[in-house]
Amino acid sequence: MKKAVVLLSGGMDSAVTLFIAKKIGYKTSCLTFNYGQRHKKEILFAKRLAKAAKSQCTVLKVRLPWKKSALLDKNIKIPENRKFSGRHNIPLTYVPARNTIFLSFALSYAEAIGAKAVFIGANAIDFSGYPDCRPKYYRTFNELFKKATKLKGIKIITPLLYKTKEDIIKLGKKLGVNFNLTWSCYKGGSKPCGVCDACRLRSKGFSRQLS
Amino acid sequence: MKKAVVLLSGGMDSAVTLFIAKKIGYKTSCLTFNYGQRHKKEILFAKRLAKAAKSQCTVLKVRLPWKKSALLDKNIKIPENRKFSGRHNIPLTYVPARNTIFLSFALSYAEAIGAKAVFIGANAIDFSGYPDCRPKYYRTFNELFKKATKLKGIKIITPLLYKTKEDIIKLGKKLGVNFNLTWSCYKGGSKPCGVCDACRLRSKGFSRQLS
Repeated sequence: MKKAVVLLSGGMDSAVTLFIAKKIGYKTSCLTFNYGQRHKKEILFAKRLAKAAKSQCTVLKVRLPWKKSALLDKNIKIPENRKFSGRHNIPLTYVPARNTIFLSFALSYAEAIGAKAVFIGANAIDFSGYPDCRPKYYRTFNELFKKATKLKGIKIITPLLYKTKEDIIKLGKKLGVNFNLTWSCYKGGSKPCGVCDACRLRSKGFSRQLS
Repeated sequence: MKKAVVLLSGGMDSAVTLFIAKKIGYKTSCLTFNYGQRHKKEILFAKRLAKAAKSQCTVLKVRLPWKKSALLDKNIKIPENRKFSGRHNIPLTYVPARNTIFLSFALSYAEAIGAKAVFIGANAIDFSGYPDCRPKYYRTFNELFKKATKLKGIKIITPLLYKTKEDIIKLGKKLGVNFNLTWSCYKGGSKPCGVCDACRLRSKGFSRQLS
């Protein structure tokens, strides 16, 4: 059975990505990060999701002492009801090189277990404008994968890159994803705040579903 | 004063690299990793080196639970008196995607503090054949740097890439590097073993210095 590493955050997109990888026939090993994020509770959701998908899940703790993000520094306010005005408006929730760090660990894990695929639920349609969610970033990272390791042929797979949130939810439902097992809100409180980017993109997807 | 992040291992090459960055006029912030390596004592050397260079030094702990390297797994023997037969003979001391992980953190750190340079003492002449020490790897990583972050213009600088160990030592001496403050041996015992790749490359450099 072919193996894949799946970057699992506990959010909707990575949940659907995990189920896509399973559907295609991969034996999946999930990788989740405790990186000092405010919404640490997403880790609990990631573990539950992995369990529901009968997948292994490794939680790695990494420290980014330089912070410089509203997701890591409680003194920076999480932006609320923000306009999604594309790539020139990267919000304060951006974490410097976060996906680069996550993908590097995923590459290491993949090579160590002999997996030829690394799945990530990145999306460049209904997103916050983060540079490390864009197609050209993934194209270049795939070039790097070719040169970085002893094991050849490891690829990043981004099945959701060009999908709307609505389509992601539709696909997830088809694949049997239980969205109650996912967490999006950046604030990580007892209930979703409804006004951060993550909440609003989530509800955008679901509203379209209902209409 | 322009800023740089320097990946500092405690070995000779990164020590010389740090002093090069200082010489060029960078305000340096060193980044050292405690990644479960056998030769953990190199971290102490890195700290001493940073102090000698009047540079800040941050030590990050990262865990690679999948190991798959003689540097991380004490059940795998460190190869001794190995032939350096080039790129098709990557030794068991190779750590999956290690430099990719280190550079990702360095990129995050650089972006957070507004540094436009990341220095790494990679060498593709007197080296063990690791894929993440080769010029094409760094070329591609620099392409990734362009696309990965909000802050534009961050570059990887590899001043030692094409130098022999002999030349690295010569240059280091000229810059005032105290090589007694560096540690190379992979085994990390009380004295260098003299037979691992790191010891042999080090002594190769110094022997040529004496001749």
